[in-house]
Amino acid sequence: MDAVKVIEIKKSVFEDNDKDAAALRRQLKERGVYLLNLMSSPGSGKTTTLIQLLNRIKDKVRVAVMEADIDSDVDAVKILEATGVHSIQLHTGGMCHLDAEMTRQGLAGLPENGLDLVILENVGNLVCPAEFDTGACRNAMILSVPEGHDKPLKYPLMFTVCDLVIINKIDVLPYFDFDMDKCAEYVHMRNPKAGIIPICARTGEGVDVLADWILKEVGTWKTAPEV
Amino acid sequence: MDAVKVIEIKKSVFEDNDKDAAALRRQLKERGVYLLNLMSSPGSGKTTTLIQLLNRIKDKVRVAVMEADIDSDVDAVKILEATGVHSIQLHTGGMCHLDAEMTRQGLAGLPENGLDLVILENVGNLVCPAEFDTGACRNAMILSVPEGHDKPLKYPLMFTVCDLVIINKIDVLPYFDFDMDKCAEYVHMRNPKAGIIPICARTGEGVDVLADWILKEVGTWKTAPEV
Repeated sequence: MDAVKVIEIKKSVFEDNDKDAAALRRQLKERGVYLLNLMSSPGSGKTTTLIQLLNRIKDKVRVAVMEADIDSDVDAVKILEATGVHSIQLHTGGMCHLDAEMTRQGLAGLPENGLDLVILENVGNLVCPAEFDTGACRNAMILSVPEGHDKPLKYPLMFTVCDLVIINKIDVLPYFDFDMDKCAEYVHMRNPKAGIIPICARTGEGVDVLADWILKEVGTWKTAPEV
Repeated sequence: MDAVKVIEIKKSVFEDNDKDAAALRRQLKERGVYLLNLMSSPGSGKTTTLIQLLNRIKDKVRVAVMEADIDSDVDAVKILEATGVHSIQLHTGGMCHLDAEMTRQGLAGLPENGLDLVILENVGNLVCPAEFDTGACRNAMILSVPEGHDKPLKYPLMFTVCDLVIINKIDVLPYFDFDMDKCAEYVHMRNPKAGIIPICARTGEGVDVLADWILKEVGTWKTAPEV
């Protein structure tokens, strides 16, 4: 099988990440590229969700994936094998998050033109990635059922910065003490506007709704007058 | 019910955390206190595991718990209610880990004398807590079945620094693609000496083995000639 490109991300020297992130967002708008920053805990199913999602949208938008990981390239390889979608691996060298400059280093490893959508799979961590604006157009996160519905109480910033919360592994709801209504209540305590989409990435349940969401987002972004 | 003490942890100013951690470990040895640093992803079941464990050991050792969290005091309240064990909440104010000085601030909120064992529930995060020696005698981590057996490949440092890996939620093994043998192989790639104890914190399965492990550790520590 094809080897995936691995980019060793260097620590940023920019002092004002928010400013840098806003600049990156403007550049992406000029290029017509929608960047989604996808966050979650380790093991919540980011990669499996991406595989299901990519197979539903890859014929409708030109999409590429950046897989950020401390080490290993298992995720980028999995994505490429299962979807054929252009995937690169970003090694953060032990760093627990990506900021805008680190994201820019990753984007430089993708084709300059011809992409509508780039999905960044951030480092598996509910704390640090929430603190750094990557320059993405939107933030989404995956909360999986086994993690529990109380996570918005314990990781407030993550749920505050996310426009979309994907609830994954709903197939195992019968085996866990997970209250969907309480979860929605806690999510909306942190961000009243956050969307919530329940899915099962293993079986594909609900992923059509997620695909519709992202396709609509990309379309709106392209035609929006400004960032 | 009783309110739990909440300590707002301040950022450390110590430059050499390793040195500070070694000093804290020596102080704990002098006081005869064994400190266990318990780490994991969000939602792996740290608090439920602690409740089961504490109810098995609280009559055999004098134990207290420090619950580190970015926000909220739900964990310390839960522990106190379910076990009666002295529990305090450490608020990290958004910080993603604890270092030795932050741990010392927490310990200062516990009784100075009369404790054999303190368990620190670190912030739910597989990245940053692994990078900072808290001064604990041992590091343990919980990996839950829904997170997947490949986590030692993706979070190498966490598995390198842990003396014990607790595999939680084994009751849901039939519903997940989790290979226990592969998991053990990957854990031992990172740390050949790491112990592995499979448990189900919900039902209590395997927690006796964990209780035996910690009681033996505390006994050995007390009589060991030096740190």
